[in-house]
Amino acid sequence: MIVHTGDGKGKTTAAMGLALRGWARGWSVGVVQFVKSGKWQPGERAALLALGRVHEESGEGGPVSWYQAGTGWTWSRPSTGDRAQEAVAAARDGWATAARLLAREVHDLLILDEITYPLRRQWLDIREVVDALATRPGHQHVVLTGRGAPAPLLAVADLVTDMTKVTHPYDAGIRGQRGIEW
Amino acid sequence: MIVHTGDGKGKTTAAMGLALRGWARGWSVGVVQFVKSGKWQPGERAALLALGRVHEESGEGGPVSWYQAGTGWTWSRPSTGDRAQEAVAAARDGWATAARLLAREVHDLLILDEITYPLRRQWLDIREVVDALATRPGHQHVVLTGRGAPAPLLAVADLVTDMTKVTHPYDAGIRGQRGIEW
Repeated sequence: MIVHTGDGKGKTTAAMGLALRGWARGWSVGVVQFVKSGKWQPGERAALLALGRVHEESGEGGPVSWYQAGTGWTWSRPSTGDRAQEAVAAARDGWATAARLLAREVHDLLILDEITYPLRRQWLDIREVVDALATRPGHQHVVLTGRGAPAPLLAVADLVTDMTKVTHPYDAGIRGQRGIEW
Repeated sequence: MIVHTGDGKGKTTAAMGLALRGWARGWSVGVVQFVKSGKWQPGERAALLALGRVHEESGEGGPVSWYQAGTGWTWSRPSTGDRAQEAVAAARDGWATAARLLAREVHDLLILDEITYPLRRQWLDIREVVDALATRPGHQHVVLTGRGAPAPLLAVADLVTDMTKVTHPYDAGIRGQRGIEW
């Protein structure tokens, strides 16, 4: 169980790099994306699904599944109103999916991308999540990403990396760029 | 120009995640691998080259090139004897390749993986490297990875993330695992 947290860049991309390594070993790779909406397609999704098709067609690597839980909510947005209700429901559906995948040992590597945000909002029950992770059957690798990972999550993780911001182009007024930020 | 440094995990994997995003945008992606030998094939290499083949066959994504500069030398190994001479020569060849790629604007995204190790050993001229990076033509994104990135490199970077180790399974006596560490 691996956690990528901290205020710097690289939490999700490092999880995706682990997905590449797992794919190359023939692992079944699953990603549950908790925050970004289905409409907003990150580049890593297209690339991992292309690798999944390579597996289907040639047998190289492993299968890839992508589960979208978010509604476009982002961690900095206010958590009130109808949009928030939808986001809460989407996050809970995402966790129900993740819990089912873990219980059934569907994937060798399961990435719960940006799960810390609904956890921090208490939209998911932290005890339930920690318990399901700590007691997952078999040899499933799980990677969790997002800022401010709650302490109970860190306590049961085998590997925790804090991506620490040293220099960021936003500080120099440079906006996010397609291909780098998503 | 992005630098992933620090003692924690995620420096190379986060660079590979950026390669996925770039690929999905149709960018030409190049990786110069400075440390691992050609014989030792990391999973990310197989996966990125598979994506390069997807591009060749279907036009989806962008082309991918992988350049191997290392001889199997690792940063913790003593830098004396014949093996070290070979490693120095391989690192200099790798940098010559990288400098040529930058000058000719061959790739939209160029990853110089683990370049900090030959830089720290002074096998490469830090002023030459910094100069070539700072004056690179066009709109080339460059990602450099490795522990202990030298200060002159950090000074010209747009984005620096320090991957900070919080919890590591080695501390609990768990050895590196295929699919996770490579």
